[in-house]
Amino acid sequence: MSRSHHQKLSQQELKLSSSEPLPTRSSPEEIDYKILYSQEDLSEQGFTPSFPGLPPYTRGPKATMYRGKPWTIRQYAGFSSAAQSNAFYKQNLAQGQRGLSVAFDLPTHRGYDSSHPRAQADVGKAGVAIDHIEDMKILFDGIDLSQMSVSMTMNGAVLPILGCYIVAAEEQGVQLKDLRGTLQNDILKEYLVRNTFIYPPEPSMEIVAQIIKYTSQHMPQYNSISISGYHIQEAGADRVTELAYTLANGLEYIDAALGTGLAIDDFAPRLSFFFGIGMNFFMEIAKLRAARRLWHDLMIPYQPKNPKSSVLRMHCQTSGYSLCAQDSYNNIVRTTIEAMSGILGGTQSLHTNAFDEAISLPSPFSAQLARNTQLILHHETDLTHCADPLGGSYFVESLTASIYDKALAVITQIRNQGGMMQAISSGRAKAKIEQAAAQKQARLDSGEDILVGVNRYQSQNSKPVDHILKVDHQQILEQQLSSLKALKAKRNQARVDECLQRIRHGAKHQPDDLVESVTEAIRCRTTLGECSLALEDVYGRYEPVIQATSSTYSKSYVNRDELDELITRVDRMSDRLGRRPRILLVKLGQDGHDRGIKVVASGLADFGFDVDMGALFAKPEEAAKQAVENDPHIIGVSSQAGGHTQLVTDLKRCLQKQQADHIHIIVGGVVPDQDHPELIALGCKAIFGPGTSLVDCAYDLLDILETHNLTSTE
Amino acid sequence: MSRSHHQKLSQQELKLSSSEPLPTRSSPEEIDYKILYSQEDLSEQGFTPSFPGLPPYTRGPKATMYRGKPWTIRQYAGFSSAAQSNAFYKQNLAQGQRGLSVAFDLPTHRGYDSSHPRAQADVGKAGVAIDHIEDMKILFDGIDLSQMSVSMTMNGAVLPILGCYIVAAEEQGVQLKDLRGTLQNDILKEYLVRNTFIYPPEPSMEIVAQIIKYTSQHMPQYNSISISGYHIQEAGADRVTELAYTLANGLEYIDAALGTGLAIDDFAPRLSFFFGIGMNFFMEIAKLRAARRLWHDLMIPYQPKNPKSSVLRMHCQTSGYSLCAQDSYNNIVRTTIEAMSGILGGTQSLHTNAFDEAISLPSPFSAQLARNTQLILHHETDLTHCADPLGGSYFVESLTASIYDKALAVITQIRNQGGMMQAISSGRAKAKIEQAAAQKQARLDSGEDILVGVNRYQSQNSKPVDHILKVDHQQILEQQLSSLKALKAKRNQARVDECLQRIRHGAKHQPDDLVESVTEAIRCRTTLGECSLALEDVYGRYEPVIQATSSTYSKSYVNRDELDELITRVDRMSDRLGRRPRILLVKLGQDGHDRGIKVVASGLADFGFDVDMGALFAKPEEAAKQAVENDPHIIGVSSQAGGHTQLVTDLKRCLQKQQADHIHIIVGGVVPDQDHPELIALGCKAIFGPGTSLVDCAYDLLDILETHNLTSTE
Repeated sequence: MSRSHHQKLSQQELKLSSSEPLPTRSSPEEIDYKILYSQEDLSEQGFTPSFPGLPPYTRGPKATMYRGKPWTIRQYAGFSSAAQSNAFYKQNLAQGQRGLSVAFDLPTHRGYDSSHPRAQADVGKAGVAIDHIEDMKILFDGIDLSQMSVSMTMNGAVLPILGCYIVAAEEQGVQLKDLRGTLQNDILKEYLVRNTFIYPPEPSMEIVAQIIKYTSQHMPQYNSISISGYHIQEAGADRVTELAYTLANGLEYIDAALGTGLAIDDFAPRLSFFFGIGMNFFMEIAKLRAARRLWHDLMIPYQPKNPKSSVLRMHCQTSGYSLCAQDSYNNIVRTTIEAMSGILGGTQSLHTNAFDEAISLPSPFSAQLARNTQLILHHETDLTHCADPLGGSYFVESLTASIYDKALAVITQIRNQGGMMQAISSGRAKAKIEQAAAQKQARLDSGEDILVGVNRYQSQNSKPVDHILKVDHQQILEQQLSSLKALKAKRNQARVDECLQRIRHGAKHQPDDLVESVTEAIRCRTTLGECSLALEDVYGRYEPVIQATSSTYSKSYVNRDELDELITRVDRMSDRLGRRPRILLVKLGQDGHDRGIKVVASGLADFGFDVDMGALFAKPEEAAKQAVENDPHIIGVSSQAGGHTQLVTDLKRCLQKQQADHIHIIVGGVVPDQDHPELIALGCKAIFGPGTSLVDCAYDLLDILETHNLTSTE
Repeated sequence: MSRSHHQKLSQQELKLSSSEPLPTRSSPEEIDYKILYSQEDLSEQGFTPSFPGLPPYTRGPKATMYRGKPWTIRQYAGFSSAAQSNAFYKQNLAQGQRGLSVAFDLPTHRGYDSSHPRAQADVGKAGVAIDHIEDMKILFDGIDLSQMSVSMTMNGAVLPILGCYIVAAEEQGVQLKDLRGTLQNDILKEYLVRNTFIYPPEPSMEIVAQIIKYTSQHMPQYNSISISGYHIQEAGADRVTELAYTLANGLEYIDAALGTGLAIDDFAPRLSFFFGIGMNFFMEIAKLRAARRLWHDLMIPYQPKNPKSSVLRMHCQTSGYSLCAQDSYNNIVRTTIEAMSGILGGTQSLHTNAFDEAISLPSPFSAQLARNTQLILHHETDLTHCADPLGGSYFVESLTASIYDKALAVITQIRNQGGMMQAISSGRAKAKIEQAAAQKQARLDSGEDILVGVNRYQSQNSKPVDHILKVDHQQILEQQLSSLKALKAKRNQARVDECLQRIRHGAKHQPDDLVESVTEAIRCRTTLGECSLALEDVYGRYEPVIQATSSTYSKSYVNRDELDELITRVDRMSDRLGRRPRILLVKLGQDGHDRGIKVVASGLADFGFDVDMGALFAKPEEAAKQAVENDPHIIGVSSQAGGHTQLVTDLKRCLQKQQADHIHIIVGGVVPDQDHPELIALGCKAIFGPGTSLVDCAYDLLDILETHNLTSTE
């Protein structure tokens, strides 16, 4: 009766006839938001109320939630040297942070010592450089590892990093059983989206499983893995895809761990999860609630005896993708909204991004403000006063059920088609995410999705971000090299050689010796790069292929006329050039973040450009060689990790050496304003920051060709 | 069964025995937050589900809420001259603001032309100076008043301001019936907390009623009144008190309007409400939901026929009280949280404060960021996708019911004791709010309540606020004076005199001519001050008494030892001075914000100071005279409205003239850093900003006495 009243009133308010249905709003998850949610929605879906701390854990992993224990403020951070990162950690802990989360630099992720020729441009850039145990000891100097919960984002070089952590604790006098924290150790999502793998999938999965086994036996308080949806969201996936792929990856790890002879309750209680939190407030809350219920239900077939085996515990991080370089103080607002979703969704720990991270590493000021966001939510509001404050909400419970159903359907399909490993190796899973990213970009570029300060409400009173953190890269590099030299001079080389031999043997014949053998090597002052190369000797290094999706972008761009106008201009330019304008898109150095470059490739190809893509992790000379072979008009360098100035300098030099410096260089990605003059001086024709419309970018490229490639011939 | 499971688990998590009850958390509203809310809570309270747009409107005044029409982004703003404010409005409208809300300066509020001797220090400071119709026309120049919804915060000088608005519209060619917007016109809360009244309560209520009558007859789209809880919250009241007093005031206005011969449905649909939004996220949401249900129920005895008569529509503003001067970028986070409460509570329009408002007027940068906060919530999240997203939440529905019950009990008690007018004139209502303010300050000063960056987690990386807006006060004043002169030179003075005579006649004998007679006077270029003084000739000017509460602060300060130590030091100082340290606290100029000064008085008195309070709206010479009579050691000047530099200059001169400049001057309130050097140069011994602990303040005062009043005698 009231529901029909509501319907009638709604039709009046929206000026609809009484026969027209009320409109819904669709989401990228293909979940339609209705105008009204009421008791009937819960009845229709057969909603069963549950309780916090009780199965299926929709309302939270603990009965008392934040009243018993607040979430851990755990800011992911690390830069330059171990000593500088250590000082930064200590300052943060003094100012209210409650746990550590270590960001390693790209060479460390990829298993290279700082001295490796492929490493040098990236040393200390997007994280802290750790080459050996002495670095790790400095990183935790004065921080009691028996008391501090430490999270380490490491996947590729996970064995030597775990080894360093164990030996650093030993040398502090801390026992293994007292160590608390989390190792990311989630290699599947690296193949799927993040690309900081080293070895091929099979041996990598073996390493994951052996670490789960080792930690379950020796480190009972330590989370052996953090199964991560965050990077899947950052790569552009919708929330259902993020959730489904993450839990499907989780099932793969369970199967791998069971394969080492463990029983489910030996390790399942120490699995942990990691999700991203974007701007759709309620969708994100519902995702976290659905995640717990879904994991509980997926665990039923494994018949755990320990209830903790079925409880999904999580870390969350606000979305980096949602940060804008334009009018970047707006990001403080965005991060606050996202942090609230994480808390209302019931996360166990949380990282809040700094507002300037679309431009550079966080400064002490922006890092403090990011941390304060959590402190304010904790101390000044009533968000923590009861467990699962949104429980029972018709809307939130309905959304939770919808995400549960959709994600379960995706997981079921993946399992039916051979599991997540198969979905990854076939490229199916990756393609789905990349399509979503291209669609999202097209919705933004066409103005269908609004980003305040970027594609609408552009700032009239912009304020540049000051206090930018500048890392003295050359100094860090020299420091790392001299410390490596000193270490090698003092150690017993014969003992190191024996250790490396034992690692190779383990990799070949005795996987359950892997953790111990690498730890022993670290103990004997073997470097991270040496351990990693010994494993590479046996496993080989994985060479990924970059491929871009096509037609996805243009299909999602609502204003077809605008697109057609651009395509016509590209066609005209092709006529005048005598061939299609050709661009080679490359990532240089050890940075594997390739959402940006793929979206650009997808858009430009749809506009009529010839697009080539370079290999991931290319050296500048490799990119220059490919350029000489392909003869593009333009090379586009994608940079997200701070290495651009050196890498572009090297690329320019290589092009000159091959008489190919008529090829224009442009740069896209995260490039601080302060670096622009140097890049321009190097001859870069354009720099495109986050939030650039691909349409605008294409017009700029045409203008470059107009100015430089046509003047002499026409 | 599950509930008892939950209880057992919770006891384990909190390390309680099975006989111990689970703890609750109390709130200033005396509503205890429980750890668990579930279906049983709804059953116990006899919860009846309802629908958005249908009685009792708990879930919102409209069926489709923001899907039908988003809330109006309505930023309260105005400063210096009409021309400058007009330019600012136009810029804001171009950047996404959707309605206007005019802030007038204090002389305008208090019915003085800029030329009045009591006015000059405040002209153009905390709002725009409007002296006559030409100013008002400039204010809306180029803004079509038939299209723009305009809110005007005006209570004291409400007749001439409404007159100016009507004539400005007329001279734009806009008809009265097409005007949309809101007049604050809520005089009761002025006597209660805000103090920008002019006349005594009875004639003021007559004016309110006549405006309701006039607008209901001639301006059908115009909200005749905005019944305001905002200022009650800002004065320190808890949310139940804010809600109860606001709705009780509303009932007084209904009775007054009925007294003019109107029927309930003639005017009740055009009543509107205005609430503050503080940091207790869910409590604020629940308050807004309870407000609608309560108003609906309170209207039942009036037997309205039009359903709209029972619908509470509201404007909300984030809390100024919650803004901190310390580490003020944190305020961006606070305002975001508060804005979300307003939206999830279902407000019809919203003002978000700028983060620098605890320091100064908003700059263009901070004003843009405040507006962007709303644009981001609107365009980038799913907050608006369904009506009342929290409907059905066990917690939110329980909290809504608790606030409803408590506020209804307060209203019932007020009505039983003779109504709100009686509660105000007896001082009961005011005392309750002031006690709450003193308690809040004591909880902050003792560290029981945490404010990030203020009493905990103080900034290590503070960043000064730049881009502070500086008004050239002298220039504005000269401009206003010359424009007044020009107006008076050109007008027909005989016609003006006739108009003023008609106003006096109306005030004496014919109240239903008041709106028309003042409007006609404005049309004839009579000034706002002239109209106001004509009314004052008949009604007189209301002289309020300032009184501070005692013992409230000390009872709420948790650490008694700390207090005793301070009291002992004050006692010792008393022995050495030969009498108690004595302080005269004064507000100068036309600013009536007296929460701060009263809380200071309450605390210092509890510590053992002799505290005198000056009259509100004192001229510097009046304060100096009182100082000479009372002979305090210190004069404390409270300033919230920007007039401090001139007022302190004048005060110093008056003290010197009376050989009383041995009395130290200190200043407290909102004083931008840039003004500190000038105040210090004038001889101010200390400047205390928002967030200062009263205990710290008292020690500083003792130090001043130690240095200056004891050296010669000991």
